[in-house]
Amino acid sequence: MSAVKGDTPQEEIRRHHLGAVLRQVHLAGPVSRAALANRLGLNRSTILALAARLTAAGLVCEEASGATGRAGRPSLVMRPESGRWYVLAFDVAVDRLAAARVGLGGPVLERREAPRRRSRYADDLDEVVGVLAGFGRELVDAAPRDARCLGAGASYCGLIRAADGMVRLAPNVGWTDLDFAPALSRRLGLGTPVAIGNEAHLGALAEHERGAGVGHRNLVYLHGDVGVGGGIIVGGRLLDGDDGYGAELGHMVVNPFDGRPCNCGSHGCLEAEVGEAALLEAAGRTGGPGGRAGVRAVVEAAENGDETARQALDRVGDWLGIGVANLINLFNPGIVVFGGTLNDIYQSAAPRIHARVEANVLPVSRQVELRTSALRDDATLVGAAELAFSRILADPLDALARTTP
Amino acid sequence: MSAVKGDTPQEEIRRHHLGAVLRQVHLAGPVSRAALANRLGLNRSTILALAARLTAAGLVCEEASGATGRAGRPSLVMRPESGRWYVLAFDVAVDRLAAARVGLGGPVLERREAPRRRSRYADDLDEVVGVLAGFGRELVDAAPRDARCLGAGASYCGLIRAADGMVRLAPNVGWTDLDFAPALSRRLGLGTPVAIGNEAHLGALAEHERGAGVGHRNLVYLHGDVGVGGGIIVGGRLLDGDDGYGAELGHMVVNPFDGRPCNCGSHGCLEAEVGEAALLEAAGRTGGPGGRAGVRAVVEAAENGDETARQALDRVGDWLGIGVANLINLFNPGIVVFGGTLNDIYQSAAPRIHARVEANVLPVSRQVELRTSALRDDATLVGAAELAFSRILADPLDALARTTP
Repeated sequence: MSAVKGDTPQEEIRRHHLGAVLRQVHLAGPVSRAALANRLGLNRSTILALAARLTAAGLVCEEASGATGRAGRPSLVMRPESGRWYVLAFDVAVDRLAAARVGLGGPVLERREAPRRRSRYADDLDEVVGVLAGFGRELVDAAPRDARCLGAGASYCGLIRAADGMVRLAPNVGWTDLDFAPALSRRLGLGTPVAIGNEAHLGALAEHERGAGVGHRNLVYLHGDVGVGGGIIVGGRLLDGDDGYGAELGHMVVNPFDGRPCNCGSHGCLEAEVGEAALLEAAGRTGGPGGRAGVRAVVEAAENGDETARQALDRVGDWLGIGVANLINLFNPGIVVFGGTLNDIYQSAAPRIHARVEANVLPVSRQVELRTSALRDDATLVGAAELAFSRILADPLDALARTTP
Repeated sequence: MSAVKGDTPQEEIRRHHLGAVLRQVHLAGPVSRAALANRLGLNRSTILALAARLTAAGLVCEEASGATGRAGRPSLVMRPESGRWYVLAFDVAVDRLAAARVGLGGPVLERREAPRRRSRYADDLDEVVGVLAGFGRELVDAAPRDARCLGAGASYCGLIRAADGMVRLAPNVGWTDLDFAPALSRRLGLGTPVAIGNEAHLGALAEHERGAGVGHRNLVYLHGDVGVGGGIIVGGRLLDGDDGYGAELGHMVVNPFDGRPCNCGSHGCLEAEVGEAALLEAAGRTGGPGGRAGVRAVVEAAENGDETARQALDRVGDWLGIGVANLINLFNPGIVVFGGTLNDIYQSAAPRIHARVEANVLPVSRQVELRTSALRDDATLVGAAELAFSRILADPLDALARTTP
């Protein structure tokens, strides 16, 4: 816990505990006071006082649960005021733009989506910002009159510099610095900054907090798009590295001699061997549609007996298995989650991937669970919402004081 | 910060702050109260009270520094009572056994070392425990009469199960469970448990706290022995994984097609390509001595113009460079440290390693510093001492209450 000069120890502790209670209600609510006391190691009178403050602020409410308590009275549970407090979440993927209004507690209340023209995505900043700001204003206008916006978060398919949120556009489009988040914030005109993160990092965060990885301390998330991104949870926290460029598992070299050229300038990177281009080329489908649709078409063809498609998926599965085995030896995770286009690829190539894991992972670390994303195409959007909620969960009353009415 | 039931918030905070002050004095002392206040974000009256408690417990003392304060008076600095408080540190490497008495504040006060017979190291538990316990008792007997032992820590060249400290002996000797730490504790007879960790994990910890990596949040440490181990610091904390088997970077497959067989059962692992056997074989020196001496002999031969030795080091440097580049893309660290036998190999093969980093690392992450271990052959021993100190740094007064007089 960081100490704040001028705060008394009591105030410091109280701010910390208020955030911890709100986080529990946000991620796991509705939840009883007894369960909260147990999970947070606090006594019931402390929980009572914290609940009273959060209730007075209108962030949570208490209501009777279906279950009854010891004395036969209905037991009270705390739940987030999802209708009153929300964030805006944005997602800039290679082939689509999406936005959603997400309530405290996590429900996606309303959403918008549009395709993104892939051909020119290195210089479509203004167009992307325009579309998303339009979605954002529509979502705010459609919200109930007494609902308030707590912030905004965005997921972007590029490397994000941690220091200032600059989008350092990925190898696939050449290195370009885009000041996306401030531009979106200005165009939205809500007086709220837009927090930003890399799509695979946010996908990992979402799967860890609300998806396949709930309860796991160590998680590896692989996200397939044109390339392959990664998000890794170590000891319960997102691995970011010195500058925010951690978990770039797509650029782990797995095939140093005969490897396919990679857009990063190297060759034999995991992304070069298992990315969209590698799959479509091996399947003889370079002329057709790319993206999620293109990958799904190969998977469906293989399921319908197309031998070329089957072999393409086996080849990709072998390389993916080598990469995943390396990651398991490095991170000793409890779970590996496949998201984006790798969701479909994993379902079709699981036996090849498991065989590689069996062959290459140290026997002591083979207990790991491999599975597809639980949040599927929403993982990055949900992660962007969690990024936007992080300020209020860190210090609820301070964040409310800074929220415009 | 974890909350303890029954503790008042004030007590909780005070325990936390006492540990934080002692940690600063232990790692960076002598240090002035003003510097402590600044680093910990606490006001000077709080520091004064904490310093008084630590001084009363005899853990630190305050004395005049050489510098003078604003009013021309000599300024006071706090330093650890290194002569009064110590831990025992043990190191079980493939080819040597070492022990040291290490004072609070980190000085190695006295040490013992013996060679280990490599040929039978899967079943020399009793012999190893006997030698180390003998060293430990000698070190305790040689300590001043008023000095007190705060605990013991051991570094072991095998995987360590986090849940119970079981040594799950590495692939190089087949999987064997050795209950080493309790056996050493019993034979020592000091009534203190022995904390245990993997040698490369502890080497990373030591380089992070007292060596080449001080001040870095993200660090990758590669440790050469017979095989290649790893220790990785992510966001200031050691990566352990679900079971304690994280950072096994020696078993990252870098050469899946033509790779040399690895003792883990796979082939093309980083360890198989750059470990001791790979180097000695390529240098045509399989009949000679192995271990640190064998590796140093190859490095010296290359420096003296031996072309076969040069080529062997170049080959190992190329593979090491591929592995290191992968690790930089995954962890975006500020520094990569080469320890154990890789210390010597890095010094000789640095140009090949840097060339691979330049070719394979994403441009945004190339600012990383590569260097040799600052603690050299003591890294694992220093890490074992830090492991032993961790209890008193977490909660000084509680740990003292549990220390036998």
